[in-house]
Amino acid sequence: MNNPQATIQEMDHAINNMGAAGVQILTSVDGRALDNPEYFAVFERMANHHKMPIWMHPIRLAKKSDYADEEKSKFEVWQVLGWPFETSVAMSPMVFTGFFDRLPELKLITHHCGGRLPYFGGRAETLWAQLGSRSADGNEANVLKSLQKAPIDYFKMFYGDMVLGGSASALRCGLDFFGPDHVVFASDCLFDPEGGEMYIREGINSLFNVGLTPQDIHKACCANAQKLMQSK
Amino acid sequence: MNNPQATIQEMDHAINNMGAAGVQILTSVDGRALDNPEYFAVFERMANHHKMPIWMHPIRLAKKSDYADEEKSKFEVWQVLGWPFETSVAMSPMVFTGFFDRLPELKLITHHCGGRLPYFGGRAETLWAQLGSRSADGNEANVLKSLQKAPIDYFKMFYGDMVLGGSASALRCGLDFFGPDHVVFASDCLFDPEGGEMYIREGINSLFNVGLTPQDIHKACCANAQKLMQSK
Repeated sequence: MNNPQATIQEMDHAINNMGAAGVQILTSVDGRALDNPEYFAVFERMANHHKMPIWMHPIRLAKKSDYADEEKSKFEVWQVLGWPFETSVAMSPMVFTGFFDRLPELKLITHHCGGRLPYFGGRAETLWAQLGSRSADGNEANVLKSLQKAPIDYFKMFYGDMVLGGSASALRCGLDFFGPDHVVFASDCLFDPEGGEMYIREGINSLFNVGLTPQDIHKACCANAQKLMQSK
Repeated sequence: MNNPQATIQEMDHAINNMGAAGVQILTSVDGRALDNPEYFAVFERMANHHKMPIWMHPIRLAKKSDYADEEKSKFEVWQVLGWPFETSVAMSPMVFTGFFDRLPELKLITHHCGGRLPYFGGRAETLWAQLGSRSADGNEANVLKSLQKAPIDYFKMFYGDMVLGGSASALRCGLDFFGPDHVVFASDCLFDPEGGEMYIREGINSLFNVGLTPQDIHKACCANAQKLMQSK
């Protein structure tokens, strides 16, 4: 991503010649936000040309401390809490700089079912409806006028994968936010205490315990992913 | 909090002489984590002597940028997403340094219903059950052995207030995590788009739309708070 033209060449090659069904990016590029203009061509290529999904995985390192007087993150906070936070943070400039107005066909799958957004859907909706009122210098009061829809409606245009540690309660919250057409199965297989089987098993169990119709279960398990990965 | 002895004197005065039913702290002290040993006497005083609750409110400023090449936080991310993140981060060292083993009577109410913890209850449970496996330098492998319970069980010993922007879906997730005995009503009144009434109205509405029994609604609205604020 630090060389967007080379990125585009590589993804064209992977998709056109090697059968890739999409690409994965990280939530920042050498510490820079994804709304920096030089990266836009990558999103544009995926949305308008390939029409295939982008998976977004969080990046945050242990050396990023949680407190000013600490040299690194303690107790694996950088990963357990920090990764989903980075996902939600990365979604924000994409929304507020109008990615979805400029690229309505963008298909972007967020890890951990949207990071924190679903649990803070109410907070995000009501506070960002007042964007500009609390900005550091008040210069963001015009951002809302530049968008065609309310911020929360753009956040719901992302997709969420189902990696929530097998929690049916959290999955229900994620589904309420994104809707059954915007959630795809994923397991985070390998990283659970059993070395892989637990996240698959509990992820499936959670999907069958959130009151979905058989049709919506089929969407989440299969049909949404098929649709996403099918180039038009 | 930068002068713990003066803090203790002031809270003794406020509680003993002026009718205060608890104290409020922030999630960090001049950027330092709450598990720094000099602050412990404050928690100890509240848990063992006053036996009254501590409200913990997040602090994170707009000048804390979200990306390395930005001078400040954009789009109010510092507050909308940053504040609940800071709450969850602040809970972590308190858990892993054994606050609840040392102070089993500690009554600490977290803002925004636990920050991110409820939505990542599954993730937190399964990853922190393996704490030490991914630490920066592997020196945290012994932390779990120092605790009497699994990390997730301590996170559930906090209380959550109901400030979730009026989202019933999120409240259901928070209640599933903390249980109906550990959630207390709160509104964040004033900060909604209507200037106060909306968060109260929608907060109450959400409580009546998450399938609670009348008894549990009474707990969340009233009885839990009464119990918390009643010195033994």
